[in-house]
Amino acid sequence: MTQPLRLGIAGLGTVGMGVIRIMQNHGAMLAARAGRPVQVVAVSARATGKDRGLPLDGYAWETDPVALARRSDIDVFVEVMGGSEGPARDATLAALEAGKDVVSANKALLAIHGNEIAAKAEAAGRVLRFEAAVAGGIPVIKALTEGLAGNQITRVMGVMNGSCNYILTRMESAGLTYEEVFEEARALGYLEADPQLDVGGIDAGHKLSLLSAIAFGSKVDFPAVELEGIGAITIEDIRHAADMGYRIKLLGVAQLSGRGLEQRMTPCLVPAASPLGQLEGGTNMVVLEGDAVGQIVLRGAGAGSGPTASAVMSDVIDIARGTRLPTFGIPATSLVAQPAARSAVPAPYYIRMQLEDKPGALAKVARILGDNGISIDRMRQYGHNGVAAPVLIVTHKTMRSAVELALAALPATAVVTGQTVALRIETL
Amino acid sequence: MTQPLRLGIAGLGTVGMGVIRIMQNHGAMLAARAGRPVQVVAVSARATGKDRGLPLDGYAWETDPVALARRSDIDVFVEVMGGSEGPARDATLAALEAGKDVVSANKALLAIHGNEIAAKAEAAGRVLRFEAAVAGGIPVIKALTEGLAGNQITRVMGVMNGSCNYILTRMESAGLTYEEVFEEARALGYLEADPQLDVGGIDAGHKLSLLSAIAFGSKVDFPAVELEGIGAITIEDIRHAADMGYRIKLLGVAQLSGRGLEQRMTPCLVPAASPLGQLEGGTNMVVLEGDAVGQIVLRGAGAGSGPTASAVMSDVIDIARGTRLPTFGIPATSLVAQPAARSAVPAPYYIRMQLEDKPGALAKVARILGDNGISIDRMRQYGHNGVAAPVLIVTHKTMRSAVELALAALPATAVVTGQTVALRIETL
Repeated sequence: MTQPLRLGIAGLGTVGMGVIRIMQNHGAMLAARAGRPVQVVAVSARATGKDRGLPLDGYAWETDPVALARRSDIDVFVEVMGGSEGPARDATLAALEAGKDVVSANKALLAIHGNEIAAKAEAAGRVLRFEAAVAGGIPVIKALTEGLAGNQITRVMGVMNGSCNYILTRMESAGLTYEEVFEEARALGYLEADPQLDVGGIDAGHKLSLLSAIAFGSKVDFPAVELEGIGAITIEDIRHAADMGYRIKLLGVAQLSGRGLEQRMTPCLVPAASPLGQLEGGTNMVVLEGDAVGQIVLRGAGAGSGPTASAVMSDVIDIARGTRLPTFGIPATSLVAQPAARSAVPAPYYIRMQLEDKPGALAKVARILGDNGISIDRMRQYGHNGVAAPVLIVTHKTMRSAVELALAALPATAVVTGQTVALRIETL
Repeated sequence: MTQPLRLGIAGLGTVGMGVIRIMQNHGAMLAARAGRPVQVVAVSARATGKDRGLPLDGYAWETDPVALARRSDIDVFVEVMGGSEGPARDATLAALEAGKDVVSANKALLAIHGNEIAAKAEAAGRVLRFEAAVAGGIPVIKALTEGLAGNQITRVMGVMNGSCNYILTRMESAGLTYEEVFEEARALGYLEADPQLDVGGIDAGHKLSLLSAIAFGSKVDFPAVELEGIGAITIEDIRHAADMGYRIKLLGVAQLSGRGLEQRMTPCLVPAASPLGQLEGGTNMVVLEGDAVGQIVLRGAGAGSGPTASAVMSDVIDIARGTRLPTFGIPATSLVAQPAARSAVPAPYYIRMQLEDKPGALAKVARILGDNGISIDRMRQYGHNGVAAPVLIVTHKTMRSAVELALAALPATAVVTGQTVALRIETL
């Protein structure tokens, strides 16, 4: 196998140019590792004239990515455009139909059309890999699909949206409100054009749904991901959580139980001293748990030109080396449609409420929790501010449904005022 | 490829039985992931009658691992016996000669004979994989060889001996001496029969030499690893380092510079707030740095039946899936013999000395450092204990050679008493 592997790269944005940079800087190193030369043959991008900082005149240009995907002189179609519909989807399908392997960084496309695209790839005998779609430079798809292939996976967790983690850790360190840090992040260019993709948990939810499919051999089921963004997190929650020894993270958790597949991308409390609790700024972290290996933690840059291009190149070199495996680790036709379970695994909860200064107020709250089978692990009441006193409760493990019933019963006590917040505590 | 992949397992100790357990518990899952059944056909062990907790009567038995390696009914020889010479080496070579692929957990064998064995495997068209030899369950060989294949690796670091990390963190948390915790660890069975393999850094040095070969495309060169164990670390060093914001770790570092390949497995200071600084107990951590990806941190169990067997199974399933790549990522014949560099990369140093209560004592020390081109970043002098005062110095980046010259010049000042300690500070 000394024939060169010929790439067509669709998209010359941050990631595409990162790939070009690696290809131009490290040709000999890549050839040695791949066992054959790896070449960029053709590229496609919307704007052709733009200066992108690197010489591109050695490559054939296509304005239409579908035309690029069908070129007879490429072996691998590298899709780094993004978008779940339109050109990215059309070109990916065209590449597979034309007999090309595909390397994709497109989490949205795969979260929404992954089952169909993987099945097409496998029916055509082609490989579709997507290391760059999840957690940037962290080789987590490889770790899960190959490195932990001997394990029954018991849980997958991750902080996989750097912008959200930046916002939450900056709120804490600078004592700023969500709104203030959100504007700061937007000004710094940390947020997507539609920021809801970040702060609403959608982008991270896409990634979680892909990890779930590999971990549990289940069909990609992004619509079943319970999504809750970070927009409702207040600086008080962050401070009170810290007081109790926790940090708040937008945490993805996937777990398969007898009730089905639970996929959540929601704000959770994690122990401040745990690896997840200590994760600051825009870094990503994925925690993989298996019955043999125990807990593996992977940490690295979740975005950016270099890290994402590094992940793309990992897939490219795998293909050059002749490594071929199904997109999600087992054939797409064998993936099982699991029923969606919502918070089926019990957990401790953090509950914050405002209690009025009335005799027996706390007893009323405690009774409602008890009536719903919720026992209290730790409780802290702060001083009254004239109107009400903040009360923090950390419960023992309980079901989400019990917490919701208790919260619904609180207003009738007439001692709880304002918004009551309940956040799951994910144990590590 | 629906032919079963047939394994012969040499060694039925902790790791071997971990592999058997996974094979017996997860046959269908492994077949789905591998795309074909994976079977244990034959095993070998010294003691045949022993109850090992799982049924073994379905497997053919060999008392001689070389005979196992040559059996015509196995495809993959799994070597989980250990030892750099004798049966492990003979059987591994016999397996390759007989046309078997080999999965090895044997760091000592590969650190000492890896170049020769990899060359034999590749000349015979066989695959030799060793995920289990480094950092137990952490899929670090895969991350480095495949996941980061698009990177020029700039540095590899790791805490890869759980026993040493247990001893160092326990000394700090319990305020015990090295000797006390050493005896405790021995009683708990945390140490090898020859504890020098652990506390002398030899075991971890073996692992580092294997990572170096992959990272830098260099020949495995274990004899060039600068080894320094943890036996000289005192509880005072640990406390003083903590005072300055550091933790002491037995840290492996490999780095290629213009002067050659530097490989160190020595006690170092790392920032207490860094992922390496926060690593407690027997857990392992490997830090991989590449020009595109930046810094990737991997954390997990570095030993034990399940984690190590998980790593073995990763290699087995790779082989079942048809993944074939050279042992160290590029052909063994292409690995370069790099000159060994000793501490060629400048770093800050932590220096602890005992200063006598004489006028101008500190000035004399400061002058010697200055004369050797060493500038002081931070300095702390503690109260006199009647005889001398402990002085801690954190230098700016300097060369090891300068520190050694300065240390050699200190006795002539007649103000420094006792043992002066200098430890490198590895920045993250």
